[in-house]
Amino acid sequence: MTLIDTCPLPYSDYERVVLGHGSGGRLTQALIEGLILPELGIDADAPMEDVAVLDSLHGRPAFTTDSFVARPLLFPGGDIGSLAVFNTANDLAVGGARPLYLSLAFVLEEGLRLELLAHVARSVRVAAVRAGVRIVTGDTKVVERGKADQLFITTSGLGVVPKNRSLSIANARPGDAVLVSGTIGDHGIALLAAREGIELDSELVSDSAPVFGLTSAAFEVEPQIRCLRDPTRGGIASTLNEIARASQVGIRVDERTLPIRSAVRGACEVLGLDPHYVASEGRVVAVVPKEGADRVLRAMRAHELGRSAAIIGEVVSEHPGVVVERSWIGGERVLGLSSGEQLPRIC
Amino acid sequence: MTLIDTCPLPYSDYERVVLGHGSGGRLTQALIEGLILPELGIDADAPMEDVAVLDSLHGRPAFTTDSFVARPLLFPGGDIGSLAVFNTANDLAVGGARPLYLSLAFVLEEGLRLELLAHVARSVRVAAVRAGVRIVTGDTKVVERGKADQLFITTSGLGVVPKNRSLSIANARPGDAVLVSGTIGDHGIALLAAREGIELDSELVSDSAPVFGLTSAAFEVEPQIRCLRDPTRGGIASTLNEIARASQVGIRVDERTLPIRSAVRGACEVLGLDPHYVASEGRVVAVVPKEGADRVLRAMRAHELGRSAAIIGEVVSEHPGVVVERSWIGGERVLGLSSGEQLPRIC
Repeated sequence: MTLIDTCPLPYSDYERVVLGHGSGGRLTQALIEGLILPELGIDADAPMEDVAVLDSLHGRPAFTTDSFVARPLLFPGGDIGSLAVFNTANDLAVGGARPLYLSLAFVLEEGLRLELLAHVARSVRVAAVRAGVRIVTGDTKVVERGKADQLFITTSGLGVVPKNRSLSIANARPGDAVLVSGTIGDHGIALLAAREGIELDSELVSDSAPVFGLTSAAFEVEPQIRCLRDPTRGGIASTLNEIARASQVGIRVDERTLPIRSAVRGACEVLGLDPHYVASEGRVVAVVPKEGADRVLRAMRAHELGRSAAIIGEVVSEHPGVVVERSWIGGERVLGLSSGEQLPRIC
Repeated sequence: MTLIDTCPLPYSDYERVVLGHGSGGRLTQALIEGLILPELGIDADAPMEDVAVLDSLHGRPAFTTDSFVARPLLFPGGDIGSLAVFNTANDLAVGGARPLYLSLAFVLEEGLRLELLAHVARSVRVAAVRAGVRIVTGDTKVVERGKADQLFITTSGLGVVPKNRSLSIANARPGDAVLVSGTIGDHGIALLAAREGIELDSELVSDSAPVFGLTSAAFEVEPQIRCLRDPTRGGIASTLNEIARASQVGIRVDERTLPIRSAVRGACEVLGLDPHYVASEGRVVAVVPKEGADRVLRAMRAHELGRSAAIIGEVVSEHPGVVVERSWIGGERVLGLSSGEQLPRIC
């Protein structure tokens, strides 16, 4: 049974998004109450307030936002809906917060198949449960054919930071250890392969996943974590550069310790990409005091998302603002920010 | 002096957005630190965290989001930047909250002139000051030429609701008075005229403005306001219908009392539009207990944004869920939800 068979009038009059779905009138109501809210698992009978008034937060609020323009909308291991939810919840988690609430804004292109929208909304619902967040407010706009690319999503996240916890990419200090919670670049290569129809040697899926359980486990064993960051757009190289720059420290990493799947390594070689710059969507880079590094490593490895966690380097006082990598063959190179566009629209 | 003359390298190498500006690498950093943050008036030297950790809120958090796809980007009385800030701050205000923080996410089309982006960012800065909100987190994505329409903005807002205040569109009760704070439809017609190159008889500008001062003045004289709503997309007809439906009451309005500028009335006649369905962006519809109606009216009229405020109708127990309007000539008609798309992309 297709989606169209199961929908009430007047939304079922349509198989595709029309401009009227963005009018604020009867068609908008039908789309939101007949499709989006039910697929999100939200009670469509409750009054449709423009604003969500929430329970008081016990701690400081953490607030973040991201737009998602990933192409294709569906890819191995996820879709633009789960990607948006996990990425936004993860930004809160690596900020030291417990993710609580999400807003969800769609920009739809006229002509988008409603079945695809329903699929994405269902995926948002499942992802929100997995990430422990609640979708509490949203918006839907429609633009003419050719004025968007099927579907863009913007999610904002609201969470709460426990007392006495203060993370910042400016907190790294010489002597600290640098860890990553798993293999890097899986998301970027899985998405690119799906987009370009590239056959990979082995099956590769996006690592897109909610990391709050993993970050909680790390805080449990080391409350003095300096900073956490998810190496998304720009890859691990950008993340390490941002930390080095903000903290005015050097970072040295050892390529031999960097967990990279052979499928990712192989695809990067063929495509002329550097995996250091390829996005992950379910990984965490952690800078922790040296004495806590092994504890955090064990805690990560004990978590299902952290099986391949590794200590990949250290913070040094030399070359402040610069990331240096020791390669497999013993040479050293500066791991700078990427200068151009390796992979457009991977999130 | 143009924007391009005043910008540091490497952002000044470009006059237009390129895909690399969305890479998460050096060009992204240059765009954000060299243009967006300075134009927003935000310290570009502070660490660029993905999440804003804010001061504890004293009261319940109010959370809202909206995407903006208005065309043209600049129109008489505003632009997509000020529109986004005011609309989102207003959603918080009509929810009974004090607007505090905003997030700001851009989707940019490759080829967008950076000067235009800078103009919009400057406008966001000025609007945020006027609305009393602070931009605390953001995101920038870039899509290929032809995959967006210059520039979309998604803003989310975070505010705080004072204790003991509870507004809902489900709260209207028979006997309540219905007010509007000013002329309706100015925004929609001003935008449409700018888009289509229509010459109006008299000068008309968007009413886009922050209404928190106005709503505060109303609460001051009547703490028991049932609900507030800004009649944006779908116009006042949609707003009244949403209230009637959620509260399961009827609403009767009198067309003779509805403030409409002659320029708006004239343009609607020529264009075959009904002003009841045309968006305002700086107006408030209020449902208040009958005994407080005159006090709220006076408070609104004493505010610079409420000079044309009027009592336009009442809540009745008859015809629950239905809005009925008594016309100039004495007849009555049902004011339903619009069934199609009067004005695409007015916000």
